[in-house]
Amino acid sequence: MGKLGFIGLGVMGTPMAAHLAAAGHDVSGFDLNADARAKLEAAGGRAAADVADAVAGAEVVITMLPDHPQVEQVVLAPGGVLDAVAPGTLLADMSTIRPETSIAVAEAGAAKGIRVLDAPVSGGQAGAEEAALSIMVGGEAADFAVARPLFEVFGKTIVHVGPHGAGQVVKAANQLVVGGVYGLVAEAIVLLEASGVDAGTGLDVLAGGLAGSRILELKRKSMVAREFKPGFRIDLHHKDMGIALAAARQADVALPLTGLVAQLVAAGRSMGYGSLDHSALLKVVEELSGRSSQEV
Amino acid sequence: MGKLGFIGLGVMGTPMAAHLAAAGHDVSGFDLNADARAKLEAAGGRAAADVADAVAGAEVVITMLPDHPQVEQVVLAPGGVLDAVAPGTLLADMSTIRPETSIAVAEAGAAKGIRVLDAPVSGGQAGAEEAALSIMVGGEAADFAVARPLFEVFGKTIVHVGPHGAGQVVKAANQLVVGGVYGLVAEAIVLLEASGVDAGTGLDVLAGGLAGSRILELKRKSMVAREFKPGFRIDLHHKDMGIALAAARQADVALPLTGLVAQLVAAGRSMGYGSLDHSALLKVVEELSGRSSQEV
Amino acid sequence: MGKLGFIGLGVMGTPMAAHLAAAGHDVSGFDLNADARAKLEAAGGRAAADVADAVAGAEVVITMLPDHPQVEQVVLAPGGVLDAVAPGTLLADMSTIRPETSIAVAEAGAAKGIRVLDAPVSGGQAGAEEAALSIMVGGEAADFAVARPLFEVFGKTIVHVGPHGAGQVVKAANQLVVGGVYGLVAEAIVLLEASGVDAGTGLDVLAGGLAGSRILELKRKSMVAREFKPGFRIDLHHKDMGIALAAARQADVALPLTGLVAQLVAAGRSMGYGSLDHSALLKVVEELSGRSSQEV
Amino acid sequence: MGKLGFIGLGVMGTPMAAHLAAAGHDVSGFDLNADARAKLEAAGGRAAADVADAVAGAEVVITMLPDHPQVEQVVLAPGGVLDAVAPGTLLADMSTIRPETSIAVAEAGAAKGIRVLDAPVSGGQAGAEEAALSIMVGGEAADFAVARPLFEVFGKTIVHVGPHGAGQVVKAANQLVVGGVYGLVAEAIVLLEASGVDAGTGLDVLAGGLAGSRILELKRKSMVAREFKPGFRIDLHHKDMGIALAAARQADVALPLTGLVAQLVAAGRSMGYGSLDHSALLKVVEELSGRSSQEV
Repeated sequence: MGKLGFIGLGVMGTPMAAHLAAAGHDVSGFDLNADARAKLEAAGGRAAADVADAVAGAEVVITMLPDHPQVEQVVLAPGGVLDAVAPGTLLADMSTIRPETSIAVAEAGAAKGIRVLDAPVSGGQAGAEEAALSIMVGGEAADFAVARPLFEVFGKTIVHVGPHGAGQVVKAANQLVVGGVYGLVAEAIVLLEASGVDAGTGLDVLAGGLAGSRILELKRKSMVAREFKPGFRIDLHHKDMGIALAAARQADVALPLTGLVAQLVAAGRSMGYGSLDHSALLKVVEELSGRSSQEV
Repeated sequence: MGKLGFIGLGVMGTPMAAHLAAAGHDVSGFDLNADARAKLEAAGGRAAADVADAVAGAEVVITMLPDHPQVEQVVLAPGGVLDAVAPGTLLADMSTIRPETSIAVAEAGAAKGIRVLDAPVSGGQAGAEEAALSIMVGGEAADFAVARPLFEVFGKTIVHVGPHGAGQVVKAANQLVVGGVYGLVAEAIVLLEASGVDAGTGLDVLAGGLAGSRILELKRKSMVAREFKPGFRIDLHHKDMGIALAAARQADVALPLTGLVAQLVAAGRSMGYGSLDHSALLKVVEELSGRSSQEV
Repeated sequence: MGKLGFIGLGVMGTPMAAHLAAAGHDVSGFDLNADARAKLEAAGGRAAADVADAVAGAEVVITMLPDHPQVEQVVLAPGGVLDAVAPGTLLADMSTIRPETSIAVAEAGAAKGIRVLDAPVSGGQAGAEEAALSIMVGGEAADFAVARPLFEVFGKTIVHVGPHGAGQVVKAANQLVVGGVYGLVAEAIVLLEASGVDAGTGLDVLAGGLAGSRILELKRKSMVAREFKPGFRIDLHHKDMGIALAAARQADVALPLTGLVAQLVAAGRSMGYGSLDHSALLKVVEELSGRSSQEV
Repeated sequence: MGKLGFIGLGVMGTPMAAHLAAAGHDVSGFDLNADARAKLEAAGGRAAADVADAVAGAEVVITMLPDHPQVEQVVLAPGGVLDAVAPGTLLADMSTIRPETSIAVAEAGAAKGIRVLDAPVSGGQAGAEEAALSIMVGGEAADFAVARPLFEVFGKTIVHVGPHGAGQVVKAANQLVVGGVYGLVAEAIVLLEASGVDAGTGLDVLAGGLAGSRILELKRKSMVAREFKPGFRIDLHHKDMGIALAAARQADVALPLTGLVAQLVAAGRSMGYGSLDHSALLKVVEELSGRSSQEV
């Protein structure tokens, strides 16, 4: 494959771009942060001078940006990616953003002959570093087929889930379920402890039955021990709950639990726990029950 | 072991008592329903004439009743189990009821020298028939040790989770998580479908990641297909959410998601879906989103 | 009118009984608390030795008790009011309890020829002292007509709202609306303050438009000033939200806002604000938003 | 006062601009809709050819637009109001939009020497037609003093509530309270009716006590009668709940009731009631309780 442009070298983008360079791809990357550009060079890529430089002549462009305003700025604004690349280029936006922006990007791309995929990931920084991301892809099947070998460089589970925006919708659905399960497990822990029941023993039972979940499997010990080192930060989950609500609004559906989970996650952030792991939703439920002394 | 008294031969109690009889125990059972008594006789047990007859001379009494009023009636009321058995008898109440009633029964028992365990189960009718129940036991360790061999006759996972009432608290915690996860998965499905994404494909992705759960594993296909044959009926889950809220009130904690899940389950019942599987919470979320036409 | 029996001389019952005595009625009262009985004597009533003594020969009995277990004990239990009074007596239970208990009391009364009204009040201690209570009455119109002159001694708004239990249902509806409006006003204040807007000015605008309410009118200044002297305590409102949820369950309806409001009120109690005015729901919303430093 | 530019001649803007013209102001208005422009001419104003034409030479510009994208387009985009007017001009944006957009508009204006107020209104179409709007104004006091005489032409309650964006925050707070009170009254009605209590009688009691509100005063009869002619449409309230949630996110606060109310209003829209009055939230609660047959 020819040249790759990569915009957005944060905690996710840096290891992803490095994996691509290590796999022998010709990667030209850009980020406003100079350190990030230096890391890409150290990993065998080329640090571009700006967005246009990074994507000039690219066959495929990958963007990995914080939220929709950055995508609008980098991709849609005058002088952005859509202005800088040639017709026929494939743009895979791997940012987690609102489905409606992904659809708008795809439509703007189509008007210029540029093919677009939305391809948000889950798995976090660890998943990016260990090349074990899950990637949910929306767009044309033919474009997915082109991008797939690249996604396989840093992804483990790679699924084409539907048309433009579908990747974002699946990611939003994932995050609302994850946030909600954390909230439910937090409520279970608070109920158990306040009732004088050993939470560890109680959660062992839950984990083995119909209440079982990946979160109970991976996080019940750390939650009971009040270890909230991220992992995936509450601040990021707060952003993602905003996306889930925007997706619901776009789809014209009413999601009552999602609406409440979003406020509990917001509470985690408001209370000052934004940089803790999202399992720290437990601290919100504890404070609601006057049990903040449980903190360790 | 000596004679066993068994009160409450419903869809759960009948197979449980039958397993005990088949295992060679001397089971004397009673239920107001004559058919249920006949089934016990067919299974090798003895149909007693009333509660006092069933428990007379029993070493262990098991009660499996619908809710706390029945337990109060059968166990605590004049002429009930506590009046009819000798000091030293062990009573294992396997009904799912409010923790405070379990504690009251244990205290009333203690006053008469009768040992009491609360031992609610999960696994439903299928679990009872296949002798694969999970049993959460509250009470004294020594009494648990006595009852355990009996529980093993119809149980697979049997855990002593703490003092009197603890079994009910763990069951309540289990049910609030199960109800909540069904609600979250329902919201995910409605969001996916309303966004034009194939729900089956989307849920496959969720099931494989941090959003994964036993419910997604076992029920996602049937939920997407709108197959809601029980399983565990919404009416029963409605009762259990009432217990979870009573347990929260007793423990003086605030559980916002549980409070909302309880109302969504209540909606399922109010809407006429009480006899469907609890996964039919999907129908509530669908109607909230004006998508009742999705029903099959 | 003939002799009146009055059971339950708490912060509400004492002034109500005193008003009746002051109006010339022959009031025989009982409470477990000796000070309360002394107060009744000081007010011109007679302190009875026990429930049976208080109600012996009474034409009308009024009960004003904390919750349904006390009503069951005082009215329904062997030796209680229904055993102690003659057929034809009218019992007005003015306690705030679950509608289903009021209905059970009415049915038990009917079986003995005793007429029963449920007649919960609102207006709090101040309303009782100032003879300005609102009284919501369920039961037969003919019985309401008999009781009305007595109710007028301490009540200002007295409405026959329907059959047995209807008084409790209307009280429950009242309390869910009151709790909810406090929660909404609390959220408005937190939003205004966190946005840098003067909450007093903002609430003045709200109070003058469609968002206006009695609570905004009476309480917005004290809420903004964080003055939470009761008034009506959160602990009592917590009890009343439990009644509202029980009434919803009894009526087979789903009330999502009520379910959430109940948990926010529970949080107020869990956090240690149970003896503050119910407007202290503001403190719950503040803590959820990490703004507890706003306390004064 | 000199020339006025007026952009946005919808159901609100048309009567507002007409009142200004009738009061003798020189109003130049624009809307994409030709009928709307014709109405302005009929009312004594001038129909402009485009935005730039409408605002050219204006001393004050008023914008009354559906939502923030239209404000961004009309005011901020190249060739928009900020490009077309002279430094010193005062722009009063009376649209109901997210506070952050109002702040962005104020900042963009300041950079060009243009003074900006955010001045959303409540009172609906009737309020606009009857010159009885409530107007919540954010921005500089000096600019408010300039705009006030114009606002008085169509407003009744006009309050300067704080700095840029404060008008929107107060409007958001207003709408979250209004939406929530409708939801609470709806739950009260459903509880009363399902319990066999006459809702009209019950609400009369509520309206007279601490649960009383402007909504109970104005709407209880129409709600009980299921008359949902707007009034203020659910579709518009749905938009406003989105603004309230955006404002909460911007202010970094957690508003659990608001989060749930937003989903109930979304349900009203999803269920097909978007063009009914917002009191039709009752229909959502009814359907949740399986009582859609109550519709009239």
